[in-house]
Amino acid sequence: MTTGFTEQTTDLLSRTPALLRVLLIGLPEAWTDTPDTAAGWRPRDVVGHLITGEQTDWVARTRRILAEGTSRPFDRFERFAMLERDAGVPLDELVKRFGQLREANLAALRDLVTDADLDKRGLHPSLGEVTLRELLATWAVHDLDHISQIYAGLAGSLDADVGPWKAYLGILLRREDPSAVAG
Amino acid sequence: MTTGFTEQTTDLLSRTPALLRVLLIGLPEAWTDTPDTAAGWRPRDVVGHLITGEQTDWVARTRRILAEGTSRPFDRFERFAMLERDAGVPLDELVKRFGQLREANLAALRDLVTDADLDKRGLHPSLGEVTLRELLATWAVHDLDHISQIYAGLAGSLDADVGPWKAYLGILLRREDPSAVAG
Repeated sequence: MTTGFTEQTTDLLSRTPALLRVLLIGLPEAWTDTPDTAAGWRPRDVVGHLITGEQTDWVARTRRILAEGTSRPFDRFERFAMLERDAGVPLDELVKRFGQLREANLAALRDLVTDADLDKRGLHPSLGEVTLRELLATWAVHDLDHISQIYAGLAGSLDADVGPWKAYLGILLRREDPSAVAG
Repeated sequence: MTTGFTEQTTDLLSRTPALLRVLLIGLPEAWTDTPDTAAGWRPRDVVGHLITGEQTDWVARTRRILAEGTSRPFDRFERFAMLERDAGVPLDELVKRFGQLREANLAALRDLVTDADLDKRGLHPSLGEVTLRELLATWAVHDLDHISQIYAGLAGSLDADVGPWKAYLGILLRREDPSAVAG
């Protein structure tokens, strides 16, 4: 077991609210209206999805591992809950809501978990047995995965403006063909 | 011509220094030692590449468009200049250097360019004629593209820790197979 795994993972998780504020608050709308792929999510959908995770997933699953182990599977993650729930809520407001939820959840985590708990097991409804360490690592990588989606959406907003340079910009090429390699 | 294109593009470009500070300054080394792909770049290599762009590319090319139009091609971008130049420089220091260069360049840009200049043309050594609008859009998308690389490297640092959840984490699957689709 790596020393300080919980602390290191929490360090990254604690940066995401400020990061989304720096990236998105007050950004001109011309940047924020494009999904990462044709059938994908706009930045506001991504932030909404992260809000759902804070409300129903990561800390709830941590508590279930600690209280019930593998005797009762996790509830399923509602991956599209934000589409109806957040309709009409401004992006800046979603970013603020996310930050409040994340900060409260990390405070709860500090009281719930030490590195001695990391090998405790829970039951994922599709994946089977997982450890608390895997849950916390996934929480952090899930942030990184979805923030990358925001970047792809922002880039897509300028797709028509880069001209011939598009051939060098993998972030644009991959929106249309995931296996594209930039020149 | 979109109203305020230069201002909107500069808005995004001006966020990158703070964003890199929030994401990288003081981050535990366990997070920052992994490249985005097997033959790719670690976060420090990406920041170094962004430094090269500030030193030799974006504003130099802007000046050449304004002063010489298409009569003399741009100098080529040294895509690997950072590997030798930045050896041994701490990541935190690279992030600070980048921020200073970016701020100075955006101040220079404000004095050099208005939206009335955006259709002016220059000559790219491989791509041929390009406009100043295309150069500025590419500057911004280039930031987004490379910051996504940082995210992939950070995620890669936890690749071994997420267990069966990896099947759901496209940012990890794509490090090995660019066309992978998360479950």
